[in-house]
Amino acid sequence: MLNKFIVERLILYNRICKDFSKAGKKWVTSRDIAEVLSKTSAQVRRDLSKLGKKGKPGVGYKIDELVMEINKLLGLDRHWNIVLVGAGNLGRALFFYPGFKREGFNFKMIVDSNPDKIGEKWKGIEITPVANLVQDINKKDIDIAIIAVPSASAQEVCDKVVRAGIREILNFAPCNLNVSDDVEIRYADLALELQNLSYTLKSRKNR
Amino acid sequence: MLNKFIVERLILYNRICKDFSKAGKKWVTSRDIAEVLSKTSAQVRRDLSKLGKKGKPGVGYKIDELVMEINKLLGLDRHWNIVLVGAGNLGRALFFYPGFKREGFNFKMIVDSNPDKIGEKWKGIEITPVANLVQDINKKDIDIAIIAVPSASAQEVCDKVVRAGIREILNFAPCNLNVSDDVEIRYADLALELQNLSYTLKSRKNR
Repeated sequence: MLNKFIVERLILYNRICKDFSKAGKKWVTSRDIAEVLSKTSAQVRRDLSKLGKKGKPGVGYKIDELVMEINKLLGLDRHWNIVLVGAGNLGRALFFYPGFKREGFNFKMIVDSNPDKIGEKWKGIEITPVANLVQDINKKDIDIAIIAVPSASAQEVCDKVVRAGIREILNFAPCNLNVSDDVEIRYADLALELQNLSYTLKSRKNR
Repeated sequence: MLNKFIVERLILYNRICKDFSKAGKKWVTSRDIAEVLSKTSAQVRRDLSKLGKKGKPGVGYKIDELVMEINKLLGLDRHWNIVLVGAGNLGRALFFYPGFKREGFNFKMIVDSNPDKIGEKWKGIEITPVANLVQDINKKDIDIAIIAVPSASAQEVCDKVVRAGIREILNFAPCNLNVSDDVEIRYADLALELQNLSYTLKSRKNR
């Protein structure tokens, strides 16, 4: 397995390549990518060589091919099935966010603890009670759990999801969760990008 | 100004320190931080020295002090006023997300183009028409705009926000936006973390 920093960089290169492609470019050099990220082109070339990709001197890499290779490496050429735990404001926003499906992430199951929500349907998927989470996940072919419940119930829900055999979890609750070493948990921190803006804003005001 | 990669690392160090603090630790070493991020402790020490902070040999840094210094540097010891553009599913989720206020980000204005939404109140803040965006922003003391509208109208909204004098923008619409060089725009990509999970999942299945 590649180390996680290479994986994170490849995800960024992928996004940059897609942006260049949308802007009408067909080829990209390691320097083009490096400039967007303030990295060295040597680093970009080293990372891309892990994919077995070598740029042509002067023209670089063919964007289509590069995106395809990175997608393949990341497993983004497949479809992954998702259980959404929590059908509140955030859960609803995530479910209807257009960016997930485009990347091959499909919501297959929605779970909530609120009796008023059970039975409601979103795009044909019925919201089921959190009490049945373990057996329902076992019946469906779920790969990833997205946790979008309040912090207070996030650990309990997380334990249930793990008990149902899920090993990949994306947590949107603003709290840390304890999981065993064989579970991969990622934290989506919606405030992270705002912290970057805070720095530029402060620097601007102090100028 | 610090380069943006140091800023991004400091934001991560900050989060890690807070996690250590929640776990009951009072002191943290550069190695503790480095291990969480798979970086070298030399890198961490170098970054923290930019804050004028030196760890004590053997014990490291006092977490409280370090968090305070990083917060100060990032401008997180202040309050920033936010206009939320888009009161749909995502806008609603962001508005009620508890992580923003905790970091000093306060929603002061909510704007939408849907006539059914205008006049609705969220925590006492009235949703106002997007048509009045420029003059309304000018009247209030807004620092940052969060864009949470569909991709199709994101550029138009972004232009209006910039025309109103806003220079810091966080875009949740899954598309790139064109802004002049003096505007700092950050992209929140909700699918980014899922791509990481996709890689570990694929690697696991191929094992």
